[in-house]
Amino acid sequence: MGPIRKHIQSFDISFHGGKVLEYAEKLGIPEEEILDFSANLNPLGSPFDYHEYNLSIEEIAKKAHEKSINYPDNRYLDFKSAAAKFTGFENVKPENIIPGNGSTEIIRLIAHCVLEKGDKIIVPYPTFGEYEAQCRIQDVEIIDVALDEVMSFSKEEIKEKEAKILFLCNPNNPDGRLWKREEILKLAKKCENAKTLLFVDEAFIELSDVKQSVADIAAENDYVFVMRSLTKAFGLPGIRLGFGIATKHIADILNVARLTWNLSPYQEMTAVALLSMEGGVNSDFLKKSREYIFEEGKFLREKISEIWGFIPGEVNTNYILVDISQRKFGSSELVERMANHGVLVRDCISFKGLKDGYVRVAVRTREENIELINTFKIVIQEWARDFAKNELKENLKNKKGKTGENGRKTCEYYPCHFEGQDCTFCYCPFYPCNDTRTGGCFVEKTRTKELVWSCIDCYIVHLREPVDQIMEYLMKDEDTDKMIECAWNKVMIPILEQKDEKQILAICKEIKKQNEN
Amino acid sequence: MGPIRKHIQSFDISFHGGKVLEYAEKLGIPEEEILDFSANLNPLGSPFDYHEYNLSIEEIAKKAHEKSINYPDNRYLDFKSAAAKFTGFENVKPENIIPGNGSTEIIRLIAHCVLEKGDKIIVPYPTFGEYEAQCRIQDVEIIDVALDEVMSFSKEEIKEKEAKILFLCNPNNPDGRLWKREEILKLAKKCENAKTLLFVDEAFIELSDVKQSVADIAAENDYVFVMRSLTKAFGLPGIRLGFGIATKHIADILNVARLTWNLSPYQEMTAVALLSMEGGVNSDFLKKSREYIFEEGKFLREKISEIWGFIPGEVNTNYILVDISQRKFGSSELVERMANHGVLVRDCISFKGLKDGYVRVAVRTREENIELINTFKIVIQEWARDFAKNELKENLKNKKGKTGENGRKTCEYYPCHFEGQDCTFCYCPFYPCNDTRTGGCFVEKTRTKELVWSCIDCYIVHLREPVDQIMEYLMKDEDTDKMIECAWNKVMIPILEQKDEKQILAICKEIKKQNEN
Repeated sequence: MGPIRKHIQSFDISFHGGKVLEYAEKLGIPEEEILDFSANLNPLGSPFDYHEYNLSIEEIAKKAHEKSINYPDNRYLDFKSAAAKFTGFENVKPENIIPGNGSTEIIRLIAHCVLEKGDKIIVPYPTFGEYEAQCRIQDVEIIDVALDEVMSFSKEEIKEKEAKILFLCNPNNPDGRLWKREEILKLAKKCENAKTLLFVDEAFIELSDVKQSVADIAAENDYVFVMRSLTKAFGLPGIRLGFGIATKHIADILNVARLTWNLSPYQEMTAVALLSMEGGVNSDFLKKSREYIFEEGKFLREKISEIWGFIPGEVNTNYILVDISQRKFGSSELVERMANHGVLVRDCISFKGLKDGYVRVAVRTREENIELINTFKIVIQEWARDFAKNELKENLKNKKGKTGENGRKTCEYYPCHFEGQDCTFCYCPFYPCNDTRTGGCFVEKTRTKELVWSCIDCYIVHLREPVDQIMEYLMKDEDTDKMIECAWNKVMIPILEQKDEKQILAICKEIKKQNEN
Repeated sequence: MGPIRKHIQSFDISFHGGKVLEYAEKLGIPEEEILDFSANLNPLGSPFDYHEYNLSIEEIAKKAHEKSINYPDNRYLDFKSAAAKFTGFENVKPENIIPGNGSTEIIRLIAHCVLEKGDKIIVPYPTFGEYEAQCRIQDVEIIDVALDEVMSFSKEEIKEKEAKILFLCNPNNPDGRLWKREEILKLAKKCENAKTLLFVDEAFIELSDVKQSVADIAAENDYVFVMRSLTKAFGLPGIRLGFGIATKHIADILNVARLTWNLSPYQEMTAVALLSMEGGVNSDFLKKSREYIFEEGKFLREKISEIWGFIPGEVNTNYILVDISQRKFGSSELVERMANHGVLVRDCISFKGLKDGYVRVAVRTREENIELINTFKIVIQEWARDFAKNELKENLKNKKGKTGENGRKTCEYYPCHFEGQDCTFCYCPFYPCNDTRTGGCFVEKTRTKELVWSCIDCYIVHLREPVDQIMEYLMKDEDTDKMIECAWNKVMIPILEQKDEKQILAICKEIKKQNEN
């Protein structure tokens, strides 16, 4: 077994979004061509992208390099000052701050300093996976409780649990659920009574509603700890920056227990620049970001709700949980198909309680959000086409023959072309025929300008007579692909070339016209 | 007590060198004016400082910022490839590498993944303090053994210890002791037999003798782990970079257990640039660095050994341990006095077994090393002057009167001016009088060009007659400082102004002449 502790040997890698490079490699395209809705970042990007904020990453990089010839000053005084002031609470002072190499380091630090083997922690579900992941290193017992239940726990119920930590993410990841400050304070009282540390993850609070923060309470109550992240609000997950807020007593201990030099000058100086923007949590940049997110979130939510079987959750911050459990495909299949089009969405299968019926999408810019919706639609079509093909193949294999009538009864899209259409070929077996004589044509995808074949004006494979003829070929006891080719040559070509070709197309046009009225 | 584990509440902050900013603030001078011998960095600086290596930190910073809009790809494939290749061992592959946010993160990761409460670890003394500091978080029992003893442990002795980890620093910090590869391999066999993980810290190996590395063994033996650091060899402690080398089995587990995104693109890209320099551990830069260190180390060692009561240790890498236990002052006093002159040396009082009798100095450039030696000398003079003054004051307080004769018998410097001198005033009570009529003059300090008063040609306070007269004043039952002023006016001024002034100075010159012959 080797020297590693047994319970750590069986760890699985933590599941996260934001795997841009991995998918870029897989698809063989540059990273910039990936549209990432799986990581929840500020859609406005970072303040470094805007001249009006007067921040220069080049200058920071230059100074940081000069400073890097020495060990960092591990008191991190500038960082602590800037972070304390940023929160906007007068009682949050530099001595209440614990700097972290990303917020996950803060979670891990708390886990190590609070938990011993066999201790219990409460992790409400569904929520961010790192609480459990970081605590598992300490070999603890995890009490899973639904988020709602946790919030309505009585004083006694919490005490009975004998938990060392209760994790609460506000707004919650992945569902964006936002708890009011008053509700958290009530929970905090119960936790203090039970000597359970209430760990409040406010990683998204700056992109949500800063008035619900309890950072000021953390500065005064040993049993409340608040975690903040700079990653999301300032759109720079690559910098790795987070911090904790605790009483001076707790912060002093944690600042000794943390890695001696956990931040580089590059990190500290970038953080100080961002945190010191005038207004702190209410800086122009963050206020604009919140306005933008709520506007776009509303738009995106509406567009998602227009897709059959896609039920978007609340919009309290820059991401939306989408319930797709009514669809026949699972979240993993949807995510994979979306990724193949260069659009990443977050598979929520790793969130306890959500199984494979949910995906999470970030709120991005208008153009990008439209692209997301379009890609959802394309991918659903693709899936349906593949599904229909498989069904047909299955039927052919089982010699079931025509399924046109059955199709009509169960299909959520019927009539997708015209009333009374033949649904044997839910999707055309000849797709993409690329033959404009059918009435089809090439259309352009919005973002990538890629040309896709559209059957928009071709109804041939939904007309009884051609369908019967095509089926005769397909039912022959030979290779299906070969028979499809045969049917194209023997049925379709003659239709497209026949003298009364106009007759067929005239019927198509007539049906279309009736349909439009 | 709050929610933090009891044993963590009593932690003291880790003691380290390199506190440049802290001392700069204290002295009210810019950081650049501090000369830091307390951190052990490459005296040649970083490869970014040399045009011939074609490395551009600006370019890295620019690309890293562009990448920072996404989460880092936490497989860190580029880093792992570069690190594996850098070692120069063919069997060390990317899958054997665990990236770390500084090498202390690697020590902590091992501590967390190997140790449970109550486990035992062997930490030889004296050695780097972070092994103990990081393991203490896991509430373990630390077995302190002298380094020599550890190396000569028999198979049985190691097994009896039932330790989960044995830490070995090669070359050792702070004494520069370098163990041969063969000796470590022998120890590794004993450790494997005892199921004790041998953790070999090779943080300084690139600035020492890379042939003694056992990184290749770590890639094949679950019970050998090697840690490397980029901080020292590449002179960039502010970047925070280190890595571990282990078998694929162990590395896979540790890469899951480490923080998901522990390196930023800025760190990864800088590391890749440095590690990919042609030749790896035998790159031009590192070869030149080693040559320079051994040359300068030899020089510095010799100069240190010329200072009475300063005994320098071996020079196997870029630092030297200096035994000052024969001196009357302790390491902390020496360090404080040096710091007041803007020169930092490492107080070794925090190293178990060394008490306050040792300091550690880095090997720096020739000019800087000379400055170190000169500052040592100035500081010793200062100390001696203060010591003598205090002795005199003590004697005056106890009405002991003249001590001239006793001084001669015990003083290590007698005769510092001339045979038969009066030693009542080991150091002149009027220093600095700034009066050139005494034969004294101003001299310039090498680096800072500061002017210091030197008594070089003044012997007046070592002549019996003036000493007797001065003592008469000092013995009066009044404030000593006032009496010193009085003695200057009543004894010294008349000597310097009297008609037979030449008589006194002539005596001084005569004595000096005799002394020189």
